[in-house]
Amino acid sequence: MNLYAIILAGGSGTRLWPRSRAEHPKQFLDLVSERTMLQETYDRIAPLVPNENVFVITSWRYVDDVRAQLPYIPASQIIGEPQGRGTAPPAALAALLLRERDPDAITFILPADHVIQNAQLFRSALVAASQVANEHLLVTLGITPTFPETGYGYIEAGEKLNDAHGMNVFRVKRFLEKPNLETAQDFLARGNYFWNSGIFIWRGDKILQEFSQHMPEMYAQLENIVRAGLDARSFSDEWRKLQNETIDYAIMEKAEHVAMIPLDAGWNDVGSWAALFDLMKRDGEGNALLGEHVAIDTRASYIYSSKRLIATIGLENMIVVDTDDALLICPQDRAQDVKKIVDELKRRKAEKFL
Amino acid sequence: MNLYAIILAGGSGTRLWPRSRAEHPKQFLDLVSERTMLQETYDRIAPLVPNENVFVITSWRYVDDVRAQLPYIPASQIIGEPQGRGTAPPAALAALLLRERDPDAITFILPADHVIQNAQLFRSALVAASQVANEHLLVTLGITPTFPETGYGYIEAGEKLNDAHGMNVFRVKRFLEKPNLETAQDFLARGNYFWNSGIFIWRGDKILQEFSQHMPEMYAQLENIVRAGLDARSFSDEWRKLQNETIDYAIMEKAEHVAMIPLDAGWNDVGSWAALFDLMKRDGEGNALLGEHVAIDTRASYIYSSKRLIATIGLENMIVVDTDDALLICPQDRAQDVKKIVDELKRRKAEKFL
Repeated sequence: MNLYAIILAGGSGTRLWPRSRAEHPKQFLDLVSERTMLQETYDRIAPLVPNENVFVITSWRYVDDVRAQLPYIPASQIIGEPQGRGTAPPAALAALLLRERDPDAITFILPADHVIQNAQLFRSALVAASQVANEHLLVTLGITPTFPETGYGYIEAGEKLNDAHGMNVFRVKRFLEKPNLETAQDFLARGNYFWNSGIFIWRGDKILQEFSQHMPEMYAQLENIVRAGLDARSFSDEWRKLQNETIDYAIMEKAEHVAMIPLDAGWNDVGSWAALFDLMKRDGEGNALLGEHVAIDTRASYIYSSKRLIATIGLENMIVVDTDDALLICPQDRAQDVKKIVDELKRRKAEKFL
Repeated sequence: MNLYAIILAGGSGTRLWPRSRAEHPKQFLDLVSERTMLQETYDRIAPLVPNENVFVITSWRYVDDVRAQLPYIPASQIIGEPQGRGTAPPAALAALLLRERDPDAITFILPADHVIQNAQLFRSALVAASQVANEHLLVTLGITPTFPETGYGYIEAGEKLNDAHGMNVFRVKRFLEKPNLETAQDFLARGNYFWNSGIFIWRGDKILQEFSQHMPEMYAQLENIVRAGLDARSFSDEWRKLQNETIDYAIMEKAEHVAMIPLDAGWNDVGSWAALFDLMKRDGEGNALLGEHVAIDTRASYIYSSKRLIATIGLENMIVVDTDDALLICPQDRAQDVKKIVDELKRRKAEKFL
């Protein structure tokens, strides 16, 4: 049973502006530690997956960044998409690329921009999932929810299947869209609803069978792309013709044999500065101060400085993020509105700040 | 009756940090308009005083800055003090330098770091004061107070003397130290108390007579300094031996014939970012935004950017001042505490930020 990792690193998050930029998005930033989120994603699975079994699928714009950050991965396995087409095409592409090499491959599909604090527990879940996947089930990790988040999709767990490596395994009853607050509170109370992590584990032959069944056109297009080779002139044009689709919608919601392993390992998608702040160590005043500071009567605030001295007086529950060319100041409970800043900059065509 | 202006430009304000720095303090900054405060001080009196009658007394460190900002002033009349010794020594020095040239000189002593919005009315007050000073009185302008400020000294006006050029002239009863709030409220209610502006008008021979009477040692020391010449090697050592004293304490509180002309001309000493904000034009949201901004739900805030884009969400009554190497964020009602930042930087010996 050979394990492979497919790291999806093509995203371009806007809610961590001004650090996250179109040219240098979230997954390439050292937000939580001295390692970037991409590097941490690799670090977490490195004890399970040999380097020659790691693939990174990203935008063509970021291929050089990925090579620089993960120099141990074979360069040919860092694949630049000509255009983002959702998570379904890269997942199927990886399976097609592995078909000849290792038809029984157990593949982990891993977003590059999540934090998982307990890496040991995460690996145990992957090992358990591998065992379940080897029995021809599609497996996902469901994050044990800690509050009624309305920004995530949910998974409703059905009956319990066998344990695997000491971890519970449930049949997946349904994948659910982002709920409203009332529904989210109901999910939390019921106890059998989990956050959709976007992490998937399956056998290569199994996922290809699902694609051929549920996404026959995409499957055929991708077979042609792989047959021509990714360095063919036609690659870019053919890729752009693919339907833009997520794995969830393309496959997981339609497939019959889907299992879920609950994961309670300090998962965080770092979807906003407030989410990042939740992960940070705080000082005695409840602050996370990164860089050079003079903080007078300043409490419960996240203050990031790249080069400048930041002096604050009387701040509370604030987020301050200072970069070379742009500065963000906002209360923590407005962290979701950072997207509005980016929208406004787009409206002004202020490309250099995007 | 020849008019002379002595502009005192040696201060090193800390409450407008991070823009005001030891190497480039408040009077050399374009805080309110495109002209610096020093230039505006000159501009205000230029219609009354010919350039050859203007002197600037500053620190030796700022002589080049003054020359650059006021190139029309004879270079020999821009005098660098070896060390700040309060306002009394430069005032007496100016009178001694003018003694031979024009013993009847009417001299305006003008701080270089105040804003006076109605320059026309200010000049009328100076003309009136000149007439009173020519009758051998020491004259000061008393600012009509608009709120019970506890950060200024006050002047208690006594009986009314004659009008001069249509302006009221009062005898000064007392100079008063900074009051507490209750006392300041009482002053405001009484109506015959005025803010001490630090602006003085006198005849050269009159002020020298007062110095020889009330500050005989300083007078003798300064006579020796002028006799040796300001380019003498001994200048620096002799100047450092002078007593550190204000005009108010050295002369005004002791002299007998002191008059005051009330001035209600939009005077502001720009003693804090909040004071500066009071002077600025506001947009529809009550903000003064200088530089490049995206301001979402931001109200009644002063936001100054030199080069960076500043994006704010949900700020109210805040002050944000961004410079190349340091950034300040504080609520307006904490603007006085900016001094604490500077104190902390001194404690840390962070010279480059001072």
